[in-house]
Amino acid sequence: MEEGKSSNTIEPQKEAQRNPLHWPKQAWTHFELVRQKSPLIQCITNFVSMDFMANTLLSAGASPAMIHSVEEIPEFTPKALGVCINAGTLTPDWLPGMKLAAQVANQSKKPWVLDPVAAGGSNYRLKACLELLALKPSVVRGNGSEILALFKGCVDSNSKGVDSVHGSSDAVEAAKSLAQQSGSVIAISGAVDYITDGDRVVCVHNGVPMLQKITASGCSVTALIAAFVAVDPSHAVEATASALAIFGVASEIGMDMARGPASLRTLLIDSLYGLDEATALGRVRINRL
Amino acid sequence: MEEGKSSNTIEPQKEAQRNPLHWPKQAWTHFELVRQKSPLIQCITNFVSMDFMANTLLSAGASPAMIHSVEEIPEFTPKALGVCINAGTLTPDWLPGMKLAAQVANQSKKPWVLDPVAAGGSNYRLKACLELLALKPSVVRGNGSEILALFKGCVDSNSKGVDSVHGSSDAVEAAKSLAQQSGSVIAISGAVDYITDGDRVVCVHNGVPMLQKITASGCSVTALIAAFVAVDPSHAVEATASALAIFGVASEIGMDMARGPASLRTLLIDSLYGLDEATALGRVRINRL
Amino acid sequence: MEEGKSSNTIEPQKEAQRNPLHWPKQAWTHFELVRQKSPLIQCITNFVSMDFMANTLLSAGASPAMIHSVEEIPEFTPKALGVCINAGTLTPDWLPGMKLAAQVANQSKKPWVLDPVAAGGSNYRLKACLELLALKPSVVRGNGSEILALFKGCVDSNSKGVDSVHGSSDAVEAAKSLAQQSGSVIAISGAVDYITDGDRVVCVHNGVPMLQKITASGCSVTALIAAFVAVDPSHAVEATASALAIFGVASEIGMDMARGPASLRTLLIDSLYGLDEATALGRVRINRL
Repeated sequence: MEEGKSSNTIEPQKEAQRNPLHWPKQAWTHFELVRQKSPLIQCITNFVSMDFMANTLLSAGASPAMIHSVEEIPEFTPKALGVCINAGTLTPDWLPGMKLAAQVANQSKKPWVLDPVAAGGSNYRLKACLELLALKPSVVRGNGSEILALFKGCVDSNSKGVDSVHGSSDAVEAAKSLAQQSGSVIAISGAVDYITDGDRVVCVHNGVPMLQKITASGCSVTALIAAFVAVDPSHAVEATASALAIFGVASEIGMDMARGPASLRTLLIDSLYGLDEATALGRVRINRL
Repeated sequence: MEEGKSSNTIEPQKEAQRNPLHWPKQAWTHFELVRQKSPLIQCITNFVSMDFMANTLLSAGASPAMIHSVEEIPEFTPKALGVCINAGTLTPDWLPGMKLAAQVANQSKKPWVLDPVAAGGSNYRLKACLELLALKPSVVRGNGSEILALFKGCVDSNSKGVDSVHGSSDAVEAAKSLAQQSGSVIAISGAVDYITDGDRVVCVHNGVPMLQKITASGCSVTALIAAFVAVDPSHAVEATASALAIFGVASEIGMDMARGPASLRTLLIDSLYGLDEATALGRVRINRL
Repeated sequence: MEEGKSSNTIEPQKEAQRNPLHWPKQAWTHFELVRQKSPLIQCITNFVSMDFMANTLLSAGASPAMIHSVEEIPEFTPKALGVCINAGTLTPDWLPGMKLAAQVANQSKKPWVLDPVAAGGSNYRLKACLELLALKPSVVRGNGSEILALFKGCVDSNSKGVDSVHGSSDAVEAAKSLAQQSGSVIAISGAVDYITDGDRVVCVHNGVPMLQKITASGCSVTALIAAFVAVDPSHAVEATASALAIFGVASEIGMDMARGPASLRTLLIDSLYGLDEATALGRVRINRL
C-alpha cells in the first residue's frame, strides 16, 4: 500500500533543480493531488483556529478532522493521511493527545506537522514544543520568533505571544541548524517564507502583509502544509513550499478585492477553492536561496 | 404551562397529508414561530462549530446559549426550549455534561437533538453516540455514514471522519429501522435530506453541494432543527423537514452570489436573516417518499 | 518603566469636562494609541468568541494572545499590557486560570476587564462572576441583565442566557451602585451604552441594533475595551467610552453595506481596520448623562 502510494506521487526534486521554472508547475501538481486524493488530515489545534483551519482544508479539497482525545487517537490517527499539531491554546490536558498522535503518525508512517505557536512565550510552552519537536515532525512551521525560540531553547523576554518580533530572514541560519539537529524540515513564515532541510533553503515570495491581521492564518497554512506533505511525503521541502505558495497566491488574489482583514479572509478561502492552473502558474514565486 | 405551549403550536400533519403543497407553508410557519418566540436553545457542541452555530441560530431569530458545564445544567437547561448535543470534538470530560443535559431536557419535557459527528470514526466515539442515542433524543441528524454507523453499531473502516463516504439515500432503510428501534426521528443530510419516524419518510430537496465545503454546516443545521422542533415539539418530523428546507433555501439564495465556500457561508447567514415568505414559499421543496 | 508608560498617555479628562466636543477627538486619540503601541492583550475567553475577538483586536492594531493555562500565566501575563477575562463557556477547570490572571495583572499593575457573560444564568456562574468581580477588574462590561444580576447577586429566573432581557437604561442606577461597591468602572451595552465609575455616567450613542444578531460582538468589544484601557489605564471611563464608540462607529459604517448579520461582521472588522480620523470625528457620539 505504501509503495503504491509513493508510485502515485511525483518526483519533483531533480527537475526543479534543473529548471527553476518548474517550481510553479510543481506547486500546481501538489495542489491537484490534494484535490484528487482529498487527504484526511487530523488536526489537534487551538480553539481560535479550528474554524478557519477546517475551512482552509475543505476549500483546498482536503478532508479535515478535528479529533484530539487520547481515547480515539490509536484508532483514528492511522486512518489519516497527515496530522497537524498546533500548540496555540496549550494546556496540560491536551499535550498527551498531541504526543500520542505524533507517535501514532510516526508508527503509521504518516507525516505530521508541528506549529509551535508562541514557543518563546513561556517556559511551559517552550518545553512542550521542544518535547513535540523531539518526536520528529516531518515539518515545523513557525514565524521568525518561534523558530528562534526553538533553536535557542529559551523563552523570549520580548515575546508578543503569537505575533513575531523577528523577521523571517533573521531566523534562516537558526532554521538550518535546527533542521540539521532535529531532522525536520523547518519553514519560517514572513514577508518571504524560507523552507530548509538543513542543506537546501527554498524561498517563497507569495502572500500579502495583511495576512498578519487575520488570526490563525499561520495555523491554517500549517494545516495546508500537512495536506500537501500528506500527498507527497517523500518531498517534504517541495510540498511545504508548494503549500505556502498556493496559500500565498490565494491571499494575493483575495487582496485585489479585499476591503480589510475580514473580507480578505473570506476572499482567500474563496480563491483557494476556485484557483485554476493558469493563475497558479502565473503567480507562484519560489526559488532556491 | 406545557399545555399552554402546545395550544400555541400548529397542527400541520393532517393538512400536509391531504395537500403536498402545504409543506412550504408549513416550513414558513415554523420559521415564523422561531422568529416570534425566539426560543432559547442550549448547545453543547464542538469547538469548530460554535461560532457558525450560534450565528445560524441568531440569524434565524433563536437565542443560542453555549453552556456545557455539569455545574450549570440542572439549573440552566430547564430554562431552554430545546437542546442541541453534538459529538464533534468529543472527550471524556464533555460527555457527562452531554448526558446530563439530555436527561434534564427529558425531565423538563423539552426536545433535544443529537448530532453524532463522525460516529463511525472510532469505537470510543461510537459508544458515546450510542449512549446518547439511548437517552432518546427527539431527533438525530447525521450524514449517511453517521446514520449507518449508529444503525450497524460498528465503526467504519473507511471513515473519513466528519465527511460522509455514503450518499444519504444509501442510509434510508437503516434510518427507518433506527427510528423504530430508538423512538427518535432520524434525519439524513445529503443531496436529498431524508427524515423518518420509522413509518413515514419525508424528503427535502433544498440545499447546494457547496455546503459540504463549509465546516460545521451540518452542525449548524442540527441546531436549527433544535430551534424548529422547540417551537413545535409534537411534530418533530415536520419541524425537522422545515428546518432543513429553510436552511437549504438560504444556501440556495446565497449560492446565487457566492464566489466560493467562505462567501457562501456569509451569504447563507444573511439570507436566513432576511428570508421572506414569498421566497420561502416559492423555493421550499419537501415531499413524502 | 511604568512611569515612562504613563507619561506617554493623554490627559483627556479635564478637557472633556470643559468641552463635550472633545469626546470624539479623545476617542480617536485612544484608537491611535492602540494602533501605535499595538498592546499585547491576553484573552481568557469563551470558545465561541475566540476567533471574532482575536480578529477585532488585530484589526484595531492590538496584539491578541489567547493563553489560559495556569502553567503559563505567572510568566506570560506580566508581558501583556492588558487582560480580558470572559465567563462565556465557563467550567471549573478554566476558573483558576481566570482568577490567577486577574491576580497577576493586579500585581503587575496592568488593567484587566471582566465580561460576566450570562451572569444571571445559574448560581454557579453568578458565584464565579462575583468571585472575579471581587478581584477588582478595572472595567466590567455587560448587558443590562448581566449588570443587574451582579448588582442583585441573584440569578435571573427569566434569563435567556447570553441575551439580555433588560434594556441598558434599566441598569444605570444598579451600575452606579455596583461601581461604588466594587471600585470597578461598569459599562452597560445596549441601544445606548452607559459607562460609570459610580459618580460620573458617560453615554455612547454609537452602534447598530443588528450587532445583537452577531454572536460574540459583546465579547469582542470587551476585548477592545481592554486594549483601549491598556494604553490609557489612568482614564478607564474615557478609554471604555472610546472603545465602545469606535466599535460602534465601525458597525455603523459596516451597516451601510451589510446585507445581514454575517456581512455586517465582516464589514465591521474591515471598517475598524480602515477607520480614518475624519470619519471617526464625524461619527463618535459620546456625552455625559
